[in-house]
Amino acid sequence: MSEKRILRVGLIQQANTADHSDNKRRLKEAIRSAAAQGAELVVLQELHNGLYFCQTEDVNVFDQAEPIPGPSTEEFGALAAELGIVLVLSLFERRAAGLYHNTSVVLERDGSIAGKYRKMHIPDDPAYYEKFYFTPGDLGFEPIETSVGTLGILVCWDQWYPEAARLMALAGAEMLIYPTAIGYESSDVVEEQSRQSDAWQLVQRGHAVANGLPVITVNRVGHEEDPSGQTKGIRFWGRSFVAGPQGELLCELGQEEAIQIVEVNLTRSESVRRWWPFLRDRRIDYFETDLQAGRFTMQIPRKYHAIYAGISRRIYGGKFLYIQKYFFVYAEIYFRIYGNLAAHIRKFYAPYTSASSGTLRERADFASAKSAL
Amino acid sequence: MSEKRILRVGLIQQANTADHSDNKRRLKEAIRSAAAQGAELVVLQELHNGLYFCQTEDVNVFDQAEPIPGPSTEEFGALAAELGIVLVLSLFERRAAGLYHNTSVVLERDGSIAGKYRKMHIPDDPAYYEKFYFTPGDLGFEPIETSVGTLGILVCWDQWYPEAARLMALAGAEMLIYPTAIGYESSDVVEEQSRQSDAWQLVQRGHAVANGLPVITVNRVGHEEDPSGQTKGIRFWGRSFVAGPQGELLCELGQEEAIQIVEVNLTRSESVRRWWPFLRDRRIDYFETDLQAGRFTMQIPRKYHAIYAGISRRIYGGKFLYIQKYFFVYAEIYFRIYGNLAAHIRKFYAPYTSASSGTLRERADFASAKSAL
Repeated sequence: MSEKRILRVGLIQQANTADHSDNKRRLKEAIRSAAAQGAELVVLQELHNGLYFCQTEDVNVFDQAEPIPGPSTEEFGALAAELGIVLVLSLFERRAAGLYHNTSVVLERDGSIAGKYRKMHIPDDPAYYEKFYFTPGDLGFEPIETSVGTLGILVCWDQWYPEAARLMALAGAEMLIYPTAIGYESSDVVEEQSRQSDAWQLVQRGHAVANGLPVITVNRVGHEEDPSGQTKGIRFWGRSFVAGPQGELLCELGQEEAIQIVEVNLTRSESVRRWWPFLRDRRIDYFETDLQAGRFTMQIPRKYHAIYAGISRRIYGGKFLYIQKYFFVYAEIYFRIYGNLAAHIRKFYAPYTSASSGTLRERADFASAKSAL
Repeated sequence: MSEKRILRVGLIQQANTADHSDNKRRLKEAIRSAAAQGAELVVLQELHNGLYFCQTEDVNVFDQAEPIPGPSTEEFGALAAELGIVLVLSLFERRAAGLYHNTSVVLERDGSIAGKYRKMHIPDDPAYYEKFYFTPGDLGFEPIETSVGTLGILVCWDQWYPEAARLMALAGAEMLIYPTAIGYESSDVVEEQSRQSDAWQLVQRGHAVANGLPVITVNRVGHEEDPSGQTKGIRFWGRSFVAGPQGELLCELGQEEAIQIVEVNLTRSESVRRWWPFLRDRRIDYFETDLQAGRFTMQIPRKYHAIYAGISRRIYGGKFLYIQKYFFVYAEIYFRIYGNLAAHIRKFYAPYTSASSGTLRERADFASAKSAL
């Protein structure tokens, strides 16, 4: 086993106002304080420069977006270089007019941009109207290499997706990092509030366990009004935390502003993954198209399953399943290449196509057809 | 929203001995007791008829295996019919000489077999030598329809795999059910013991959250000796539990024998999935081949990436990526169809092939090549 690697991580959870320059001033103070306490990596909350503006849909908000590189990467980059730390930002990215992303940027110790991650999963719920503001990320789940380790950056809504965590882990992430902004609708009852924030923490600690790596999550705090007045606004629940590779809580903050340094033992993942070699035994032969369920579907209507399976079994034996399977795979590739043609074909096949009922489900269809025979 | 559905689930955790008929007699008593208390669905622990025999590798143990249908489905089927309950068994299946599975069988209220699930993920750790005994399942992740709901049955080591839970959920499972047999190596320190059993519970409650459905897990209890004497044996940690669709604990048992009835509100999943529509926003366009990492790889050596990407960008523009991508997909399908030929091709391409470094990673390769240019 290689030598023990301890990483000192700084978490900063802050309550924001509409005054961006004041928010940034306070963030910088906090970053300086974290660095003074020995932090080598500092993680900020989601969209840390301003209010969480997605409680309503307002075209004027797009004025707040900025290019990357841009003003924030400049000024925070200068600070990262001055302090010699790696810094995880979360920005409202203006990529082009009408094209905006929720983007996390990692700054290296020298102030340069080590990499960026564009939030892949975009929510759309009352008070979290993110689909209005953010185009879903197009950079995939690629970890960012830095001087403190390989960072698997994901953002907020991504937290709920085991696929995102897994893909980052498989691509070599040594830790998962989630800048986030989540809270209670202020009128929720207390039991529901704790179920929600507990679930939020649970699922992420679950990612730590499933992938044998640490998880670092920084959430905002404070109450922010709903500009439309339709709800009582969001009370961001804080509870920023760090979990080790067995999901064990190394640190959990409260619901108020805080600066916290946490020591993370990066060597421990190696041991945990040796004890519990989950990654070894994944049934990738069965994950093929199933995890893409809903992406494309061309199903034989259910009432024909029995006839279909009967024919396939009697005439072709088991091999028919393979023929059928590869027919669908070929068809799919074909459609993806010839996009426009695909539209015509889809229209033609509309009666046999179901968008809601799954993916290439030959295996399941065949099983149900067999039992129906 | 449809009418409220409450399901009364019975959990039975038992300490076993080498005396199969006594184990079964006690199980039947417990099942009767659960049914008398109103259980409509009863779940037993993994390999409930005997000792957990995988602490050593012993060919004589195969004598304990039985066909399905067979003696256990007969006798427990008669009991299920008598009590009018749905019953989840976990058996050592003898499919043919030399072909054995760790198989869960669901019995309907009339005693018939509703379906079976063959454990897909097979561990192999000191004291859990399951790869010696069990061929990995070949039935995939297909839920079983019963009169009490659609059951996503998974077994023990499957617990650690978010993919298994997700695939069951996508295929329509209304709840996840895990018969299991897991414990501490008796010499582990107490802190490590709690980290392990906490992690085990965490990751499964995480599946509940990520998929918005209840999770029912039944683990064995008691201490079982290591026949080889190499370890101090396994202390099965019990802690059978039921979690609701936000991961909230509805019930958790201790480390001793127990019969417990838990009410599960199946309607709640529908509400939770409406509040938190995780399944809506999955980035299936990015899950394609990535989650199969390691299944098949034909990579261009890293040192050629820059040249390769340069050519592709200058000559073909962005389209080259697609051409490259579909080339790999076609190649893969081709290899899978012509298995033997594939072996020859693989041998030929061996210098360009890496089994350990991922899957069709064109996207990543291209990105790294681009930044290298």
